Amino acid sequence: MLDELHSREDLLKLNYPQLDELSREIRCLLVDTISKTGGHLASNLGTVELSIALNRVYNASQDRILFDVGHQCYTHKILNGRLEQFHTLRQFGGISGFPKPYESDADAFIAGHASDSVSVALGMAKARTLLHQDYDICAVIGDGALTGGLAYEGIENVAASMEPIVIILNDNAMSINGNVGGMTKVLSRMRLSEGYAGFKKRYRAVVGIDSDLYRFGHRVKEEVKKKLFAGNMFSALGLNYLGPIDGHDIRELESAIRLAKSLRMPVLLHVVTVKGKGCQYAEAHPDIYHGIGPFNKVNGKPLSQSEGFGDCMGKELCALASRDERITAITAAMSDGTGLFEFSQHFPNRFFDVGIAEGHAVSMAAGMAKQGLLPVFAVYSSFLQRAYDMLLHDVSLQKLHVVFCVDRAGIVGNDGETHNGVFDLAFLSTVPGMTVLCPASFAELRAMLSMALYELEGPVAIRYPRGGEGLYTASNTAPESIVREGDTLTIAAYGTMINEALAAADLLAAEGISCEVVKISRASPLKTDLLLASLQKTGWFLMAESVCAPGCLGEKILANAQKKQISLKGSRLLNLGEGILPQGSVKDLMRTCGLDVAGIARSAKELLSGRSKTHE
Amino acid sequence: MLDELHSREDLLKLNYPQLDELSREIRCLLVDTISKTGGHLASNLGTVELSIALNRVYNASQDRILFDVGHQCYTHKILNGRLEQFHTLRQFGGISGFPKPYESDADAFIAGHASDSVSVALGMAKARTLLHQDYDICAVIGDGALTGGLAYEGIENVAASMEPIVIILNDNAMSINGNVGGMTKVLSRMRLSEGYAGFKKRYRAVVGIDSDLYRFGHRVKEEVKKKLFAGNMFSALGLNYLGPIDGHDIRELESAIRLAKSLRMPVLLHVVTVKGKGCQYAEAHPDIYHGIGPFNKVNGKPLSQSEGFGDCMGKELCALASRDERITAITAAMSDGTGLFEFSQHFPNRFFDVGIAEGHAVSMAAGMAKQGLLPVFAVYSSFLQRAYDMLLHDVSLQKLHVVFCVDRAGIVGNDGETHNGVFDLAFLSTVPGMTVLCPASFAELRAMLSMALYELEGPVAIRYPRGGEGLYTASNTAPESIVREGDTLTIAAYGTMINEALAAADLLAAEGISCEVVKISRASPLKTDLLLASLQKTGWFLMAESVCAPGCLGEKILANAQKKQISLKGSRLLNLGEGILPQGSVKDLMRTCGLDVAGIARSAKELLSGRSKTHE
Repeated sequence: MLDELHSREDLLKLNYPQLDELSREIRCLLVDTISKTGGHLASNLGTVELSIALNRVYNASQDRILFDVGHQCYTHKILNGRLEQFHTLRQFGGISGFPKPYESDADAFIAGHASDSVSVALGMAKARTLLHQDYDICAVIGDGALTGGLAYEGIENVAASMEPIVIILNDNAMSINGNVGGMTKVLSRMRLSEGYAGFKKRYRAVVGIDSDLYRFGHRVKEEVKKKLFAGNMFSALGLNYLGPIDGHDIRELESAIRLAKSLRMPVLLHVVTVKGKGCQYAEAHPDIYHGIGPFNKVNGKPLSQSEGFGDCMGKELCALASRDERITAITAAMSDGTGLFEFSQHFPNRFFDVGIAEGHAVSMAAGMAKQGLLPVFAVYSSFLQRAYDMLLHDVSLQKLHVVFCVDRAGIVGNDGETHNGVFDLAFLSTVPGMTVLCPASFAELRAMLSMALYELEGPVAIRYPRGGEGLYTASNTAPESIVREGDTLTIAAYGTMINEALAAADLLAAEGISCEVVKISRASPLKTDLLLASLQKTGWFLMAESVCAPGCLGEKILANAQKKQISLKGSRLLNLGEGILPQGSVKDLMRTCGLDVAGIARSAKELLSGRSKTHE
Repeated sequence: MLDELHSREDLLKLNYPQLDELSREIRCLLVDTISKTGGHLASNLGTVELSIALNRVYNASQDRILFDVGHQCYTHKILNGRLEQFHTLRQFGGISGFPKPYESDADAFIAGHASDSVSVALGMAKARTLLHQDYDICAVIGDGALTGGLAYEGIENVAASMEPIVIILNDNAMSINGNVGGMTKVLSRMRLSEGYAGFKKRYRAVVGIDSDLYRFGHRVKEEVKKKLFAGNMFSALGLNYLGPIDGHDIRELESAIRLAKSLRMPVLLHVVTVKGKGCQYAEAHPDIYHGIGPFNKVNGKPLSQSEGFGDCMGKELCALASRDERITAITAAMSDGTGLFEFSQHFPNRFFDVGIAEGHAVSMAAGMAKQGLLPVFAVYSSFLQRAYDMLLHDVSLQKLHVVFCVDRAGIVGNDGETHNGVFDLAFLSTVPGMTVLCPASFAELRAMLSMALYELEGPVAIRYPRGGEGLYTASNTAPESIVREGDTLTIAAYGTMINEALAAADLLAAEGISCEVVKISRASPLKTDLLLASLQKTGWFLMAESVCAPGCLGEKILANAQKKQISLKGSRLLNLGEGILPQGSVKDLMRTCGLDVAGIARSAKELLSGRSKTHE
C-alpha cells in the first residue's frame, strides 16, 4: 500500500479500510526504522492516524501544519515525499527527525523546542490576512507542550485574534514523564466529559475491558471523581472547543478536522491518542520509548546502554541527598533523560517535575534557595536557553545558591541543530556571579557536585556532554592545570575534549612536536595564570572547544593574553563557528568540525607551519 | 496619622475610619513624592488599601509577601520602615522603587520583571514544608503580569502542589496598555459574576452613577453580555477561587485574605482595584501615569519631555509603514514606552500588543516573517532576555527576517538593576546570523531602520538607549569609521557613548594627547579593519562601552588584535563589569562607572602613564 503512495491524490483515493491497512504498514515501518536509527518511537506510533487525517484534509505543501516540538512528524514525512529516504532518519546526511522546511514544502517550520506552535501559527495567520492570501493553518500540540507558558501566551493571543486557526490538542495523557500540574487535571476532567464517554465506550469495545489501556482510563476516571467538573479552560480563554474525539479513528478525525476548519475562527480540537499505539512494549512504557537509541524490535530491548554523565550525576545526587535533607531535584519533564529517575523514586517529596516549564523551574528554585533549601535543576543545555532571564533576574541578582546540572552540553548528535548545547558557555558566562564548571570525567563530576553544593556560593552550573567519559578518568578540579608538559605548542581544552587534546598531543609527539596541554575546569570565572605562562613559554596557542565562537573561551583567553601583553607567534581557535551543526553521530560531527584527534593534530601542524597564522 | 506609625503593632491598633484616613495620607505622600522623583504612580495609588490589609493580616518580616513586578510596593515600603527615606525614592543612594531584601526583611524577594511571583512563592512554600517551618506566603500579581506564560506555569504547578499559598490577583482591568488576549475576557466575565455584582452595587453607591468608574464598569458589562459565562479558568486549573472583592475596602480585604489564608491550600483571591485611584488625572489616564518622570502634581503635566530614540523609531516606522503594507509592529505591553503609540493609532490592523509575553512576541514574529511580512518587535533590552531561546530557535535557525528595536539598551537609571539593558550585546551576538546595529544619533537610527528592513537579511537588532541623542547628530552607518584622527591613543566606542569618547578626546587634546576615535556601528558581525590599523599606529587602546564585561566588544577587539598578532603597548576596557548597577540618574551612574567624559579622559591618562597597563 505504502509503495503505491506517490502523492496526496493517491492518499485521497484510499477508502477507510485501506487507510487502516496503511496505518498498519506505517507502524511496521516506524518500528523497523527506529529500531535501527533510534528516535522518537512512542509519539510517532501515537500519531499515525492523525497524520493521515491531516494530510487528507489539508494540502500540506500549501496549508501550514505546525507540529509542536516536531518529534511526532515521522508519518507526515513518510506521506510527504520522504518514504525512500526514511531509512536515513537522524543519520549524518539523512533526513531529520524534526520538521525542516529545507527538506520539503510540507514542513512548515523548524521545530525542536516545545510550545511555540500556537504563536507561530498566529504569526502566519496574520500574514495570511494582511497579505490577502488564502490557506489553512493548523497547529498540532501535545498535552506535554501545553504545560509550557509559551503555549498559554499563544492561546491567549489566538483566542483574542479571531483568526481562523485550528489547534489540535494531541492528548496522550502522558507527556514525557507523565504530566504534572493543573493542566493535567483539566484534561483528565475533559476526557471524562460526555464526548469522551462515548469515545471510551467505542474504544473499550475495540481494545477489550482487560487491556492496559482500559485500566489506565479507569484509573484516571477514579481520580477525577474526587473533583467536580469545573469548566473548560479553553472555552474560558475564548477558544471554540471541540472534542474530545478518538485520535485513532481516521474517519472521525477527518470529519472533526473538517468541521474545525470550516468554522473560520480559532478552534481547539481535542484529540485523544495512545502513545506507543500498536506496539506492545512502547504502549506499556511510553516514557522509555519516547526517545530511544537503536533497539531489538522484537522485544524492545535497547542494543547498548552505557553509563553517561547524567546517570553519574543522578547517582551522586542520591548519595548526597540521603545525607542532606535540604537537597531538592528539579526537572522540566526530563527525569529519565537527566538521570533523575532514581532520585524521584528515593526522594519523591524532594523531587519536582514541573512540566516543560524551564522558566518556572528556575524561578521556583530561586524561591527554594532564598528560604534555605539546596535546589539542583538538571536540564538540557539547549532547553535552559528558555530560562536565561530567570537566571539573571531571579537567581543572580540575589546571589542565590542554585545548582544547575547542564546536561547535553556541546554536540548532541542525531537530534540535530535544535538540540545542540553550544550556546550555554557564552550565555552562562554573562550571568553575574555564576560559576561554570566543566567536568572531564565522572570523578570530576562527582567532586564538582559536592563542591557546587558545599564550597561555592551563588549560582553554579556544571556542564557536561551527552554520553560518557573517555580515557581521561582522573579527578582534577583546579580551575586550570597542566595535564601534559611540552614546549612547542600550548593546547587548551575543557570537559571531555581533554581526551582529544591529549590524544592529539600524543600524535604530534610522534612527529616530534612537543605540546603542553592545559586543562580548564572552571570556565567562569576564568583563571588563566598557568595557561598564560604556558603561552609565554611556547608562543603558540591552539584552543579546542565544542561551543559557538561568540563568547567562547578561546576568545576570552586571547583577550587575556593581549591584556597581559603576551605576544603570540600564532594562535588558532577551534570551535563550532556560529554554532549551527547538521545532524549525525557525535563522532561524525566532531570529525566534520575538525575537533576529533586527527583534526586537532592537523590544525596544530598547520598553525606551526604558518599556514594558519591568521584566523580564517 | 502616618507620623505616628512606627510598627506593625501601631497599624493593628487603628480602626477602619482611621485606616481610611491613613490611606488618604499615603495617597498624598505618593503623589507628592512621585511628582518629584518620578516613578510608578497609578499602580501604587491602586494598591494602598491592599497593602494596608496585607500588612495587617501578615507579619511582613516573617511571612513572605511577593509583589509581582514589584512596582506597586511603595505603600508596603512606607508601612515597613521606609517612611523617612521615602523622599529618596529611585534616587542615587536612595530607596528603590522595587522590593529589595537588602533594604528590609519585609521585602521578600527582588522583583522587577513580571510573572515570576507564583513560581517563587511555590519554591518558598516547598522550603517551608521540607524544612518544617511555619510562615505564610502570599503572591500579589496584577492582571497584566498574568498574561505572561511564566505566571501560568507557576499557577499550574501551585494548583497541583496543595501547598498553602494565597495568590492575590490584583485586577485593575488595565495592565500597562490595556490587556489583550483571552485572559482579559476571562477576567471581564468573572468581574460580572454574582460576587462582582454585589461589589459593584456597593461601589456604585459610593462613587455615584455618573462617575467615570461606573461608566467603565458598564462598558465592560455590555461587552461581556455578548458572550456566555463559560467557566472559571482558575478553578479549572485546580486553584480554589475566591472573589471578586472590592480592593479599596480594607475591612473586606482583610476578611477575605484571612479566609484565604485559613483554608491551608492554594487559593486565588480576586481583588478588583482602580489604577490611579484617588487622583483624578491618574485615574483618567492610568496608562500615562503607569511609570512617569517628575510632573506638576496639581495638573499632572510632565515637567519635561524631550524626544528619545524610541519616539524617533516610532515616527520613522510609521513613515515606512505608510509606504509598505508588509510592515507590522509588535509590543509586549509597552506601546507607549517603546514609541509605538502613533503606529497603533495609524495602523491598528498591523499593530500587535501581545501582553507581557516576549517569548510569544518573538515566535509570532517568526511566523509572520516566514509567510512574507516584515515584523518589527520593539522591546526593552532587559525584557528581551525572556525570549533568548525564541531568538535562537524560532528566528535564527531559519534565518528569518525579523527586526528587533531594542530600546533602553545600556544604563537605564532610576529603575535600577533589573531594568538595565547591559546583557543584550553579549547574548544577541551569540545568535547565529543576527546583525546588531548601534545607532549613535537619530539620523543613524532612521537610516538603520531602513537598512534593517530593506538591505539586510535574517534577524537584525537595532539597540539604542533610553533618552535622546547628544552632540553627535551625524549619520554614519558604516560598520566602523574613524570620527577623529590622532596618533597617540585609540579610543573606540559605539552608540551614544561616541559623545563621551569625542569629548574626552577634546579634553585630552588640550593636554597634548592626540586621540584617534573609532566609532563602531555594527557590533555583530564585528568588523575591525580600521580599528586594528589604528591600533597598529597608536599602540594604545581604550574601549568605552556601557554593557557587561563578559562578551563585550572590547574583549572581542582584543582577541582580534591578538589573532592578527598586533602587540599593544597597553589597553584598557571600560565597561560595567558584571553588569549589576545601583539605581540613580544615567548621568550619576555613568560617572560612578567612570564612563563620563572625565572618567574616560582619566583612564586614558592612567593607561598612557603606565598606571593601568595591566587590567584590574
